[in-house]
This record gives sequence, structure tokens and C-alpha cells, in this order.
Amino acid sequence: MGRALATALTTAGHDTTVWNRTPGKATGLAVTVADTAAEASAASPLVLVCVRDQSAAEAILDADALRGRTLVNFTGNSPRQARALASWARDHDVTCLDGVIIATPDIIGTPAATLYYSGPHHAYQAHRPVLAALGENADHVGTDPGRAAALDTSLQDLLWTALSGVVHAFTLAAAEDIAPDEFAARAKNLIGILPDMIDQIAEQLDTGHFPGDDTTMDSVGAVMDHILDTVRFHDLDNGVLSAARADVRRAVDAGHGTAGYARLAAR
Amino acid sequence: MGRALATALTTAGHDTTVWNRTPGKATGLAVTVADTAAEASAASPLVLVCVRDQSAAEAILDADALRGRTLVNFTGNSPRQARALASWARDHDVTCLDGVIIATPDIIGTPAATLYYSGPHHAYQAHRPVLAALGENADHVGTDPGRAAALDTSLQDLLWTALSGVVHAFTLAAAEDIAPDEFAARAKNLIGILPDMIDQIAEQLDTGHFPGDDTTMDSVGAVMDHILDTVRFHDLDNGVLSAARADVRRAVDAGHGTAGYARLAAR
Ligand SMILES: NC(=O)c1ccc[n+]([C@@H]2O[C@H](COP(=O)([O-])OP(=O)(O)OC[C@H]3O[C@@H](n4cnc5c(N)ncnc54)[C@H](OP(=O)(O)O)[C@@H]3O)[C@@H](O)[C@H]2O)c1
Ligand SMILES: NC(=O)c1ccc[n+]([C@@H]2O[C@H](COP(=O)([O-])OP(=O)(O)OC[C@H]3O[C@@H](n4cnc5c(N)ncnc54)[C@H](OP(=O)(O)O)[C@@H]3O)[C@@H](O)[C@H]2O)c1
Repeated sequence: MGRALATALTTAGHDTTVWNRTPGKATGLAVTVADTAAEASAASPLVLVCVRDQSAAEAILDADALRGRTLVNFTGNSPRQARALASWARDHDVTCLDGVIIATPDIIGTPAATLYYSGPHHAYQAHRPVLAALGENADHVGTDPGRAAALDTSLQDLLWTALSGVVHAFTLAAAEDIAPDEFAARAKNLIGILPDMIDQIAEQLDTGHFPGDDTTMDSVGAVMDHILDTVRFHDLDNGVLSAARADVRRAVDAGHGTAGYARLAAR
Repeated sequence: MGRALATALTTAGHDTTVWNRTPGKATGLAVTVADTAAEASAASPLVLVCVRDQSAAEAILDADALRGRTLVNFTGNSPRQARALASWARDHDVTCLDGVIIATPDIIGTPAATLYYSGPHHAYQAHRPVLAALGENADHVGTDPGRAAALDTSLQDLLWTALSGVVHAFTLAAAEDIAPDEFAARAKNLIGILPDMIDQIAEQLDTGHFPGDDTTMDSVGAVMDHILDTVRFHDLDNGVLSAARADVRRAVDAGHGTAGYARLAAR
């Protein structure tokens, strides 16, 4: 991801200085290579960090080198970690934004990449022209430094749960002799209904009413039981689906059998 | 759903006779109401059945009334149940198609509804003009009577697992003070990447190669651990995500840590 960010910056014509723990990773990039993280930090008013995890990021951040500059941390982190870093930055006169990348490295700098930023709005506004090089589909989502990470964590929750369903469904389809390319075409058609369902869930959460007009919690439970029958018949793993079934059972036991499925999202 | 099917048929100008266990459910429809299921079956060359579950369907099917006619069973069922009904139909000189409805009742007859049929192709061709009234986005997916149900079961597996992720993500977002409408907008943007990911998984399953170029099984595990940290911090249910995490752990333990996530779909 570091290479992708540097490439996008230089492509947009920005002078870029990079550092990576293992040397030699900047081969072929039109960048200045610094010998230390501190040296790279001191080279520009805007400093981007993107390493494996928050503890790696914290280990290479040099308060003296960063003083008076703006730091954007693209390292994957939790809302609490982002807030802790922001507090460290305040203590050391560093302006800090937390950045979230919803993209794989290959699409950085294209409209397919989405980026979210949180932290001081003036800092985002000031550096927006440079940050736009990473992807124009970008938003400042709040001044709470943890907000971008909170959004990211919720979106990743949705994404990886959904993808666990995708790979499981491919496996089930294969067990029923449905080829990957046929299943892919049908699955892409199916997920066309998700945007409307997401809007409907949001609307029901807003109003606090969960009508079971289209389909009830009870009937979702029955559908899941049917899927589980076939999954067990083929002796496939059923951990995720059984856990989803248990959530529905708990909602039914709590008296929400005739409510819509969105009731599960209510606290 | 029965009302929706009858409405679509009459709207398209087809003479329609209906029966429902509890009388009075056809109020306002331009249909003939039969006194028994057998009488409704005998009224037309094409007979549609859509009741709660396969055992309810089997209880109301009358071999004598159906003989020589074409039966389309839209009742939700498993591939094995669909094959069993087809075999019963063959024994009783009934032509049988299994139908699958990927739609809620309100969109029956519109392009938003998808319908899949399996069983004898000639029967589908012969009745296609009438069946088109239910939704033109329709496909005959195979002569194996269980194939439409197999496809349906796999698609429902994907859908309900994905939706379990959607409702959980709304809950997590709410715990981080992100409002439903904001989360919905971000989530709809995110799932725009799913079609390409589905195609990529299908391609990798076809070739049997699962490169970890974009993201590896190891890093998916790390991402899931981060989500779980925040989920546990807010004391939210983590059943589905923990089960998905366990699947990744098993793949890593089996030596696929540097493979792509699609490796999970391989047998
Ligand atoms: N890849 C994606 O699709 C994606 C998407 C969104 C967000 N992200 C986030 O981007 C960050 C980087 O991901 P990646 O895909 O680039 O991972 P990666 O390919 O594994 O690279 C990890 C980077 O972190 C460095 N690093 C690890 N431990 C370090 C330490 N203790 N001190 C200094 N540097 C250290 C590595 O340096 P060496 O070269 O010396 O090992 C390398 O540059 C992660 O936080 C990830 O959550 C990635
Ligand atoms: N709703 C959807 O979004 C949807 C989508 C795709 C597929 N489907 C499938 O469509 C079928 C019907 O769903 P629905 O939403 O219409 O369900 P529903 O509103 O609960 O209606 C169930 C129907 O089945 C009848 N029934 C139940 N047990 C019976 C029995 N023992 N003998 C005779 N009739 C019986 C009911 O008659 P009474 O009026 O007498 O109770 C009613 O007409 C299900 O198999 C479902 O999987 C539904």
C-alpha cells in the first residue's frame, strides 16, 4: 500500500520522500528515499504513514521530526487507537488526521478507491488538494479522530461477513454441481437488491418500526433452516450460518417473530 | 405470494382460477375461486402452487386432477425435495417444473423480480409466454428438477449471511454514534466492490490458483481480529464474525496463510 500511495503522489506531480523499514522497496519510483523515518517525516509539511499495524506506526513516529507538520495515518486501526494517536499528536504539537482506505493498492488514485478522513477539519481542507491524488472519492467524516476508523470497522464488519457468505455459497453451489462462473452471474444479479434493503433497514432503524410485510423473522429462520439442511447434507462447514440462525432464534424468543429482519439491528 | 402471482397473471389477461386453504384471501382479485385445490388444478393446463412449505404443497396436490397438466411448484424447497416431487409427478403423468422466486411479493411481475425454473425444457418453452407475466427476468437453469432449488439455496445462503453482516454493521456503527442514514450511504458505496470480487473468486476457483496479491488470508484474519476487538469493546454479539474468523484460522492452519481469501471456497 505504501508503494501505491507514493506512486499516486508522484503521478500527480508532488515531490515525495519515502522511507520503508526494509530498504529497496522504492525501486522504480520517482521519489527521494530517506535513511530514517524521522528524515522522511522532516522532508515535507504533509506526512503519510501506512505500515502493518498501529504499534508499528507508533514505533516509527518521531515527535521532533513531526512537530508543526500534518500527519495522516493510513495504518489500519481501531477508533480507540486513532483517538490515542490524536491525543499523542496534540501533546507534541503535531496536527493529526486519521485516514481510512477502502481500496486495494491497485486502484489507489482511481475513482474506484474511497478514502475517509477524520480529525481537524482545517487540516483536511488545507491538504485536500494533495490528498486528492490518492483518490477523489474522499470525505472528511468528522472531527472526532476515531470516526474514520469507526466507519471503517463497521464497513469491514459488513464486507468480511458478506464475503464469508459469498465463499460459502460458491462452495455450496459447487456441491450441487453449479459452476463458479454460472453462480457468479446469478450472485451478481441477486446482490442488486442489497442497496434497497440497506436503505430499508436504515429507514426502519430511524423510525423504530420493523414491519414484517415483506418477510418476517420467523420466515427468515425457516429459510435458514432449509439452507442448513442442504449444507449439512453435503457435510459442509455451517459455523457462520448457524451463528446467524442463532441470532434469529434469539430475536424470535424475545418476541420479534413477526417483525422484519431489520429488528436484529435495533438495540 | 399467492396473491401476487394471481394478480400478475390476471393483469397480463390470463383467465385464472385460485384456491387458498383459508377462504377469503382472493378478495378484490379478478379470478375464479375454486372450492378445492383439486378443482383449481383441473381448471387450467398450467397449475402454479405456492404454499408455506413442501409438505403443505404435497398435501394439496391431487394426482387425478393434475394428470396431463403442467405443474409449476413455487413453494420454497430443497433440491432433494424438488427431485422427489418430480419423481412423484412422473409416476402420475404430470409434467413438473420447479420454480424459484427471487423477489418479494410487491415486485412480482416487474423487471426487479428474478425467476428460475428447472425440469423438462419443452414444458418451460411451452408455458414461457404465460410464466413471463410473473417476471420477464426469468431463466430455465437446467433439466435436473433440483437445479433451480440448488441455485436458490446457494443464493439464499449468500443473501442471509450478507444481511447478517449488514444488520450487525448497523449495530456496530450505532455503538460508534454513526447514524443509520450515514452508514447506509457508506455501505452502499462499499458494496459496489462486491461484483468484481465475486468475479475474481469465480476466476480463481476456475483456475485453482488463489494468489494473495490484493490481500492474504493472514491479513484478513488480522482485519477480523481488529473488528472483533471493537465489537467486544461495545459488548455486542460476535457469533457470526467469530465463526468467520474460525474459518480463516482453519485455512491458515492448513497452510493457506499467504493465499487469497477465495481459497476458502475451494474444497
Ligand atoms: N492492502 C490493502 O488492500 C489495504 C487496504 C486498506 C488498508 N490497508 C492498510 O494498510 C496498511 C499496510 O498494508 P499493506 O497491504 O501495505 O501491508 P504489507 O504489504 O504487509 O506491508 C506492511 C508494511 O509495514 C511495514 N512494517 C511492518 N512492521 C513494521 C515495523 N515494526 N516497523 C516499520 N515498518 C513496519 C512493512 O515494512 P517491511 O517492508 O520492512 O516489512 C511494510 O512496508 C495496513 O495497516 C492495512 O490495514 C491495506
Ligand atoms: N414472501 C416472499 O418474499 C417469498 C419469496 C420467495 C419465495 N417465497 C415462497 O413462497 C411460499 C409462500 O410464501 P408466502 O410469503 O406467501 O407465505 P405466507 O404469507 O405465510 O403464506 C403461506 C401460504 O401457504 C398456505 N398454507 C400453509 N400451510 C398450508 C397447508 N398445510 N395446506 C394448505 N395451504 C397451506 C397458507 O394458507 P392460509 O392462508 O390458509 O394460511 C398461505 O396461503 C413459501 O414457500 C416461500 O418460501 C416467498
